[in-house]
Amino acid sequence: PRAILFMIPSGKPLDAMLAKIVPLLDKGDTVIDGGNANFHDTRRRSAELADRGLHFVGLGVSGGEAGARFGPSMMFGGTPQSWDRLKPILTAIAAKYQGDPCVDLLGPDGAGHFVKTVHNGIEYADMQLIAEVYGLLRDGRGKKPAEIGKMFEKWNSGRLKSYLMEISGKVLTSSDPKTGKPMVEIIVDAAGQKGTGRWTAIEALALGQSATTIEAAVAARSWSAVRETRALGEKLFAARPVSDAPPLDEADLEVALLAARIIAYAQGLSLLAAASDEYGWSLDLARIAEIWRAGCIIRSAMLDDMARAIRAGLPQGVLFFAPEFRDDLDRAQNSLRKLIAHGALNGLPVPAFAAALAFFDSMTRARGTTDLIQAQRDFFGAHGFARLDDGTTGQHGPWTMG
Amino acid sequence: PRAILFMIPSGKPLDAMLAKIVPLLDKGDTVIDGGNANFHDTRRRSAELADRGLHFVGLGVSGGEAGARFGPSMMFGGTPQSWDRLKPILTAIAAKYQGDPCVDLLGPDGAGHFVKTVHNGIEYADMQLIAEVYGLLRDGRGKKPAEIGKMFEKWNSGRLKSYLMEISGKVLTSSDPKTGKPMVEIIVDAAGQKGTGRWTAIEALALGQSATTIEAAVAARSWSAVRETRALGEKLFAARPVSDAPPLDEADLEVALLAARIIAYAQGLSLLAAASDEYGWSLDLARIAEIWRAGCIIRSAMLDDMARAIRAGLPQGVLFFAPEFRDDLDRAQNSLRKLIAHGALNGLPVPAFAAALAFFDSMTRARGTTDLIQAQRDFFGAHGFARLDDGTTGQHGPWTMG
Repeated sequence: PRAILFMIPSGKPLDAMLAKIVPLLDKGDTVIDGGNANFHDTRRRSAELADRGLHFVGLGVSGGEAGARFGPSMMFGGTPQSWDRLKPILTAIAAKYQGDPCVDLLGPDGAGHFVKTVHNGIEYADMQLIAEVYGLLRDGRGKKPAEIGKMFEKWNSGRLKSYLMEISGKVLTSSDPKTGKPMVEIIVDAAGQKGTGRWTAIEALALGQSATTIEAAVAARSWSAVRETRALGEKLFAARPVSDAPPLDEADLEVALLAARIIAYAQGLSLLAAASDEYGWSLDLARIAEIWRAGCIIRSAMLDDMARAIRAGLPQGVLFFAPEFRDDLDRAQNSLRKLIAHGALNGLPVPAFAAALAFFDSMTRARGTTDLIQAQRDFFGAHGFARLDDGTTGQHGPWTMG
Repeated sequence: PRAILFMIPSGKPLDAMLAKIVPLLDKGDTVIDGGNANFHDTRRRSAELADRGLHFVGLGVSGGEAGARFGPSMMFGGTPQSWDRLKPILTAIAAKYQGDPCVDLLGPDGAGHFVKTVHNGIEYADMQLIAEVYGLLRDGRGKKPAEIGKMFEKWNSGRLKSYLMEISGKVLTSSDPKTGKPMVEIIVDAAGQKGTGRWTAIEALALGQSATTIEAAVAARSWSAVRETRALGEKLFAARPVSDAPPLDEADLEVALLAARIIAYAQGLSLLAAASDEYGWSLDLARIAEIWRAGCIIRSAMLDDMARAIRAGLPQGVLFFAPEFRDDLDRAQNSLRKLIAHGALNGLPVPAFAAALAFFDSMTRARGTTDLIQAQRDFFGAHGFARLDDGTTGQHGPWTMG
């Protein structure tokens, strides 16, 4: 049997290619899509090819250009038969973490592409958090890119050690060969996006999960695109705020970034768990953390701890409730709070940090405020509510319609 | 020709009903769906019925129980022919704002249901913002529900005047007939949702709009559902923060709520504009604001100003750039900042307020921080960036892959 790997855009081009190639294949052949497909498409294609006795593999591949040369992390979604056939090749080319190849069969049909999508969503959140720290230092403190880059390089030797921290240090200390200025100062501040971040946020909503740190990152990229609007906005609201926000030092920023990163992972993991339930994938979340330890864009020192914490069982499924991360959050809590206060009072946008703290504060408060929302809903729509005292549901308040 | 109105759940029950009723109809008959349909379904059903020479109307209806009795606001999506036929009946039963009936033909097929979905999304955001103020006062200041309700009643005589403000005052001052306690204290803090808020956030993402205040409200409801998780979280992170946040008085809360409400509307309007472009609906946004002035759940004093501002032309399409709202934002800016700092430093979740400020601060900053994100993307994936100095695109930095 043959195995054919495509690494082309996963939308219409792949469907067009499949239409041409599938009639030429024989039963038992395998087609592999190594692009960033929407997992719904992968599920459809898997079913279509299965009808013809063919295997379809949705292979999430992360690692960028370097991964392509030195070994990527690969998230395999497909049949056990196709995994058995391809395992020798894939484990040979995969990145290795202390000898362990960063590739595995994660589940059937769309499982691999879904995990890759969430990987990218977490990547969006992490990049956005780093960019927010950069903004606080550049616009709030007047720091030069190279100074910020050196700070990031230093952080990269601690608990924040990660590929994204490393390359952020590198790009911020780079100069433009043409002008000699810091490279980032020459770059237009309008970020591109290809869909995976947006898909992550959409699927989270569809599954009732709300990955708000990832949503914030997607939003920030969208807003960055409307440069004329932002320029007009700056003119219209020229009076920049001046505040005496609580002092915020370098150590605060470092631990707050770690805490927010952990929270972004927590939201990503919850989404994976929910999708696994919904689609019957039986995802092994610990194994996913393991195959992200090398080769991929979000590889970081934290992922080994994460895999261990997941294997030990996350309390209520929440990553930062695990002993491995609880101390990080405890230590960082006040710094995270000060960071957001600082951003808010000085007009420096910190949407992803704010989303992270809102999630943390909501998840650590036994009594929330949706009692009022339930009351409002009952008032205007007779939706009913549950009572705390006797546990009855479908109850109504003593109001008459307004 | 006949006209048949359904007000039943708009998912499978409606499809099942259509399968039964459509064969009994004649060319030129009209079927009206008055439920909260997903507009994608409405588009599909419109096309299916059009094939048989039938008219399908997606009619968004808002007003709750009172609206049903005293006149709702209705958002009509359908053919001009069906509008001509139904207009006399619908204008007769619609709520009136100074004599003007709150109903109109907004566009073809899914336009009415889409506008209703966004209406509900804005409703989610507004309810969440009110609940966040309630939380700040209850958990931050130890205020009793009735005190907070009286404050809301007072605000309801000012620029915040609105149905949701009015009923929030009413429910907070209500007592439980059974125990005599404040009604809200008896209500379980787990909010229900039926899908329209979530759909709004999903469609915003799909259209590259990111309605983050609405997303925050949807997320808050989702998180409220996991009460055991939150109870464990409170135990694990027992040390509540204590802070000397900047003082925040009642007037700050009032103007901050107004500002955040305006920002939520701004996001909703941008989403309507984007959908109108995408689906070729030619939505009249000013008319939409007008038909929301009475009958519907989000009716407020602000909507008349909003319609006027939209007719005059929103600068860069942003509601709060318009003269009618710029002053509100200018006046409220510092209060909004203090509110978020206060929430962050005291562990009181304010996700929708934080999302509103992040949007405001992002839209009023000519130079953002996605230059760093573009540099990161170019570093790991050779995605290329545009240069500020010469306008060239597809440029790369002086880095070699890591």
